[in-house]
Amino acid sequence: MRRHVLFGVAAALLLASSAHAAPAVRGGDAPVKAIVASPQWKAARDALKAGHDRFVSDIVTITEIPAPPFGEEKRGAAVRAMFDQIGLSDVRVDAVGNVIGLRKGTGADNGLVVIAAHLDTVFPAGTDVKVKREGTVLSAPGIGDDSRGVAALIAIARALDAGKIRTKRDILFIANVGEEGQGDLRGVRHFFGNDPLAKRTSAFFSVDGTDASRIVNGGVGSKRYRAIFRGPGGHSYGAFGLVNPMVAMAKSVAALYEISPPKDPKTTYSASVTGGGTSVNSIPNAVFMEFDMRSESAAELAALDGKFRAIVEQAVADENAARSTRAGTISVELKVIGERPAGQTPDDSSLVRNTQAAIRAVGLSPTLEASSTDSNIPMSIGVPAVTIGSGGIGARAHALDEHIDVAEPLSSQGLIAALTSLVAAAGLAR
Amino acid sequence: MRRHVLFGVAAALLLASSAHAAPAVRGGDAPVKAIVASPQWKAARDALKAGHDRFVSDIVTITEIPAPPFGEEKRGAAVRAMFDQIGLSDVRVDAVGNVIGLRKGTGADNGLVVIAAHLDTVFPAGTDVKVKREGTVLSAPGIGDDSRGVAALIAIARALDAGKIRTKRDILFIANVGEEGQGDLRGVRHFFGNDPLAKRTSAFFSVDGTDASRIVNGGVGSKRYRAIFRGPGGHSYGAFGLVNPMVAMAKSVAALYEISPPKDPKTTYSASVTGGGTSVNSIPNAVFMEFDMRSESAAELAALDGKFRAIVEQAVADENAARSTRAGTISVELKVIGERPAGQTPDDSSLVRNTQAAIRAVGLSPTLEASSTDSNIPMSIGVPAVTIGSGGIGARAHALDEHIDVAEPLSSQGLIAALTSLVAAAGLAR
Repeated sequence: MRRHVLFGVAAALLLASSAHAAPAVRGGDAPVKAIVASPQWKAARDALKAGHDRFVSDIVTITEIPAPPFGEEKRGAAVRAMFDQIGLSDVRVDAVGNVIGLRKGTGADNGLVVIAAHLDTVFPAGTDVKVKREGTVLSAPGIGDDSRGVAALIAIARALDAGKIRTKRDILFIANVGEEGQGDLRGVRHFFGNDPLAKRTSAFFSVDGTDASRIVNGGVGSKRYRAIFRGPGGHSYGAFGLVNPMVAMAKSVAALYEISPPKDPKTTYSASVTGGGTSVNSIPNAVFMEFDMRSESAAELAALDGKFRAIVEQAVADENAARSTRAGTISVELKVIGERPAGQTPDDSSLVRNTQAAIRAVGLSPTLEASSTDSNIPMSIGVPAVTIGSGGIGARAHALDEHIDVAEPLSSQGLIAALTSLVAAAGLAR
Repeated sequence: MRRHVLFGVAAALLLASSAHAAPAVRGGDAPVKAIVASPQWKAARDALKAGHDRFVSDIVTITEIPAPPFGEEKRGAAVRAMFDQIGLSDVRVDAVGNVIGLRKGTGADNGLVVIAAHLDTVFPAGTDVKVKREGTVLSAPGIGDDSRGVAALIAIARALDAGKIRTKRDILFIANVGEEGQGDLRGVRHFFGNDPLAKRTSAFFSVDGTDASRIVNGGVGSKRYRAIFRGPGGHSYGAFGLVNPMVAMAKSVAALYEISPPKDPKTTYSASVTGGGTSVNSIPNAVFMEFDMRSESAAELAALDGKFRAIVEQAVADENAARSTRAGTISVELKVIGERPAGQTPDDSSLVRNTQAAIRAVGLSPTLEASSTDSNIPMSIGVPAVTIGSGGIGARAHALDEHIDVAEPLSSQGLIAALTSLVAAAGLAR
């Protein structure tokens, strides 16, 4: 379910005044207004606007270094050099290829805020990634998802320095691997599972995609299987009567589609890809199907997963009971090909409220949505996380004709909102 | 069902004596004994034995000319030259590629006997078809199925001339295309559907495979579909609730496998090959399955076909009723990818009885079997037909390590039995 929460002027005023009246409600317009009133923020904002051409040039540089799934090394090396060049400290590439750089805070707070963007694209090695430019429109595979996001990290770090902004908490910049598809969020998963800094993380931003008004604070969890049904096979005529793995698979799909999952929290499934068999005159030795399950709720996802396993096992048992097993039985292998934990950053959390206020501060109307992004990982372990856009307009993500429009003021608005959200989360030191 | 009818000496004697006592029973040992007692037959038999090396050389020549499915032209051209060289008349290649040559009879009977062997192999273009020889064992893809059969036609035609055998009926030699798999018997189907000589055909032999004791007089019919289920597709999460073509297919397979076909006449089915879908996070636009149905009975095959169509249509309707069709409905295309009519040449027909007697005359024990061969076509329109072996031993047909053993006397025995059966069907003119 996509939840679009549109705030009008009246609602914004109401929120601002209620925040003032009731300090128990954390974050929101009042603290963000204090940030945007500061001379440091104004200097940073001006730097983002003034540096826009350089930002666009970085987008092109990053886009034109191929970063296919499980092949992000080359782009990562270039981003590492950029992290060094802009003066981040402790710059490193971790065991899975995440590029990490630190911007120290004042130490007034031991917390740490992560801002990440993903290096990988969905496009295989060999894809032409040369950027074509017509006016403010730049076209190339991966340019909006997520090359612009990675370039935004660089632009924001430069602007923080230009504005001499000091934060109470450390800020960790991560250009991470493995967000897309079978990458299965492995970069951010590795960070939170292994990095010593993960424990100190008090807020997480993923800058992914363009739309600056969109906040993803619902993490749709998913579990994906390839179910491979195997049997003895045989001649379609001579061996008629033997068990057939395609029947076990068919009965599984038919029974799975009797499940009525809840609408809220939204929970879904799909029998998506199938294949197998050798020739029309042979009982197949093996057939497979890929099955996708998703939910906004970890509990509902687990319940659906349990039903999936039970149904498949039952269908296999039924087929072994229905036909002859004299040449062998049907078995099934359940191979997990994707697993993203569900999670949620509450609508009334300070992270969400500050981010909404930061978006409003640049004149846009924030929406709250649920999706499946790198933020799923921190959300699932209770770390407040949101996925935000880097600004401008993007279209045709995951398609070869992917393109972005970097026309101002929309392009810089996203960068400014992201910087503001980041500073609000990290705490502006006076 | 494979029916193995083994005749012992006592049974053979009984049949011989009953044929003598009751002339209403046509064919059998008595007329065959008259043929094998003739000096012409003896001369032909001796010619087959004496020409065995030449026969083996022809097998190698034919085998080493690739004849993949739907690519028999080159082998056909070579066989056409052989038909010319051995003195057949009216040699021609018909519209689909069958190579046809006539050996005129005396005209005492207007009937015509066809003896055919198929040019095509199951092996794709590019397969190494070089023959390897070790002693009497020759190995190459297609060598037994059916290069040896084609060479047998040449050897038999030569032997008929060597023995100065004159027959009452014309004999038509056909090296036909399209027996295997998706070829779907198209060569013989074309002959019986289009050739002016088809109407005069009173008996049909297909020389296919090696085993000289095997007579196929039951034609297992088959009908094969590729069922393509289509729908609107969509995002597995965003478009959850839309109809899914994989569910219609799954329900079809599950319902089809509830059918209990008769054991006699043997009737079978198989869901054999499947495929479709684009990615694990997409509801598929299209999936397909290939379904094979066979029966010894044309009526049972037609009944099964009717059930298949009804079940598939119902499954599609059920899916369109079960989920949303707002983005489009599920439809199914049923593409016939194979159709072989069922048929039978009666066990007590003169063709079967003469062929059994001819096999016994070389010292082998004939069996009667049901299979799916080129003979299905004439059987299905009431033309007496049998499929017989060309002799010797064959193994691993349809596999790359296919091989035959041409050791004597087994190799020539098959040729002699085939020649004897042919002369019995065509009538020896004195």
